[in-house]
Amino acid sequence: MPNISQKGLNMPSSPIRKLVPFAENAKKKGVNVIHLNIGQPDIKTPEVALNAVRNMKLDVLAYSRTEGSEAYRTKIAAYYKQHEITVSAEDIIVTTGGSEALSFVMGAIMDQGDEIIIPEPFYANYNGFATNNGVTVVPILSSIENNFALPPIADFEKVISAKTKAILICNPGNPTGYLYTKEEVEELAQLAKKHDLFIIADEVYREFAYDNKKHHSILSIDGIAENAIMVDSVSKRYSMCGARIGCVVSKNKELMQAILKFAQARLSPPTLAQIASEAALETPNNYFTAVIEEYVSRRDLLIKGLKEIPGLTVAEPSGAFYCIAELPVADTDDFAQWLLESFELDGNTVMVAPASGFYATEGKGKNQIRIAYVLEEKELVKAITILKEALKQYPQT
Amino acid sequence: MPNISQKGLNMPSSPIRKLVPFAENAKKKGVNVIHLNIGQPDIKTPEVALNAVRNMKLDVLAYSRTEGSEAYRTKIAAYYKQHEITVSAEDIIVTTGGSEALSFVMGAIMDQGDEIIIPEPFYANYNGFATNNGVTVVPILSSIENNFALPPIADFEKVISAKTKAILICNPGNPTGYLYTKEEVEELAQLAKKHDLFIIADEVYREFAYDNKKHHSILSIDGIAENAIMVDSVSKRYSMCGARIGCVVSKNKELMQAILKFAQARLSPPTLAQIASEAALETPNNYFTAVIEEYVSRRDLLIKGLKEIPGLTVAEPSGAFYCIAELPVADTDDFAQWLLESFELDGNTVMVAPASGFYATEGKGKNQIRIAYVLEEKELVKAITILKEALKQYPQT
Repeated sequence: MPNISQKGLNMPSSPIRKLVPFAENAKKKGVNVIHLNIGQPDIKTPEVALNAVRNMKLDVLAYSRTEGSEAYRTKIAAYYKQHEITVSAEDIIVTTGGSEALSFVMGAIMDQGDEIIIPEPFYANYNGFATNNGVTVVPILSSIENNFALPPIADFEKVISAKTKAILICNPGNPTGYLYTKEEVEELAQLAKKHDLFIIADEVYREFAYDNKKHHSILSIDGIAENAIMVDSVSKRYSMCGARIGCVVSKNKELMQAILKFAQARLSPPTLAQIASEAALETPNNYFTAVIEEYVSRRDLLIKGLKEIPGLTVAEPSGAFYCIAELPVADTDDFAQWLLESFELDGNTVMVAPASGFYATEGKGKNQIRIAYVLEEKELVKAITILKEALKQYPQT
Repeated sequence: MPNISQKGLNMPSSPIRKLVPFAENAKKKGVNVIHLNIGQPDIKTPEVALNAVRNMKLDVLAYSRTEGSEAYRTKIAAYYKQHEITVSAEDIIVTTGGSEALSFVMGAIMDQGDEIIIPEPFYANYNGFATNNGVTVVPILSSIENNFALPPIADFEKVISAKTKAILICNPGNPTGYLYTKEEVEELAQLAKKHDLFIIADEVYREFAYDNKKHHSILSIDGIAENAIMVDSVSKRYSMCGARIGCVVSKNKELMQAILKFAQARLSPPTLAQIASEAALETPNNYFTAVIEEYVSRRDLLIKGLKEIPGLTVAEPSGAFYCIAELPVADTDDFAQWLLESFELDGNTVMVAPASGFYATEGKGKNQIRIAYVLEEKELVKAITILKEALKQYPQT
């Protein structure tokens, strides 16, 4: 029998994958599982996007251009202009989700053994893209005490070596919900420039900035055009995760030429989803006003509820739709499994994402969980009550 | 300015990419360019597939399952059964096109420096996936004299080393149009088993088998379940290249577990396109009968026409919709550019794919081109006339 690759063995599993069979078993036993573990919003996709697909007149579902259609990229550039990001269609390559954008970026800027610095906790799939590209993630610890703000620049300086090729941030952050300040984004930009590194910002949650705080794009910083790379996606913005449309944006022409070659090998991004994504740009502003009101209301309810649970610490998120909570337990992997396997309250339980999967440093985050507040308030209230009662009953609390 | 990666520099461009600006210039000058260079069929996508998308009732365009929906994979398995391939839903992972399927396979079975043997000429993007995965392609020369049949097994044996992890074939072949016989597929299977290699068959053109010849899947061979991997796509079968839906199929459970981890990192294949692809499985059989009749008719017309051109040799394809022709010129890259830059016949010219990009051996295929017969007969007739006249006038003939 032929062997699979070392890389195949090393590829990380999703942090919640091993919980899935336990969730399925719970459901089989008739227990209702409330999912706090995934970033799949229940918010409706804008009608204008869905209708564009319903009304499409194609009779041949043909390849699009490798880099995405000129029309769509021109409209994306116009959308960015409204967000103080000045780019043109040629600075944009449309990708199959933000995932592919990040994969292409890693391949285009790093070789086997190169290093990328990422503040932790970070989006777990960054590990997958790194492993797939033979790249080593160098984490910099951020802390729940200050809501996972940018760690001191000195911490970055300490780990920068000849192998370091890039710094990657997610802003606002999944899983932290932290929204970087203008000063933080500028500090990172200067650091990248000083050390001749790429600075990659995953800005897929751009719209989800709360409390009158403003989102600051890496592409809005002057003087770092050659260093700055932005990764984007329609998944969260328009609640169309299943479209699988994203893009990579940079003014660095050598980089974009290289990324285009990676894109050519896979021919084109999906055509139907580009129709939906192009139409989604016509989404009226009141859609976002309503969505953001909804998320703020959910967040406030969730954070208030969590804070009333004895022994629980929670970071206050200003963006995205996640928060990290620290529980009075030793191992949230075990707790999450116990919730699904051995606990129920009036026929309900919750599924949470253990946070250790969001850390690269072994042993970190073992008492933390990530909660996605993508469910309606009634469900969130139920979930908080369940968590509270579960922590009372959990044998290892 | 930060440097891009060596991998980014090494990624191959598409064989026709450098011709694109010349085609655009020709069009600007008012010349009509007939495209013989691409595999984008003009055949209509089945109505049942397009209508499923037009009638979709989703209000949230959500992620699908990472491996594709259970319903869709179950139906794919039933489709395969009709083609003498016995697999179940769990042997199938749905991917974003055949491209992603091949990328996942290479990542899951090969590490940096490993080798994959591929008969040449081969589909040029195999080079891109190999480079992206740090894998070396070891080509085995096939020949226009016998229509690019499988080279002698002894030629494979000569290059198998400790680094060899897999053999990859495209059946029927792009760019050759060659349909492997049952004996050839069996010989390859036994070779893979003997040397403990994976044998990967790209079977995206399965339906396009002509002259009452039968397509023989690698998965129809007994006794090599652990070695055999099949890559598939809806792109050509249903003329829906823009869907970007494919799949990887194997009975090797360790391999499929590894591939699932690569798939998890990118979350899910596109949801809208899965709706279209699932519905496409209801395409009536007379759709294929008509399409195949059309391709056979085009092929016959094309091959007959090409054979009448002095000094031209053409392989006789029995499958897919490509053929390789050898021209009485020294360098088809130059000829293809000249066709776009300096030639026209009554306001028309043709764009062809120089074949050197389909060979890994330096210098091979320099007098060959690939022609895709995906255009209606009237256009093909025009194209043949243009080629004939162009070869008379081309200064370096």
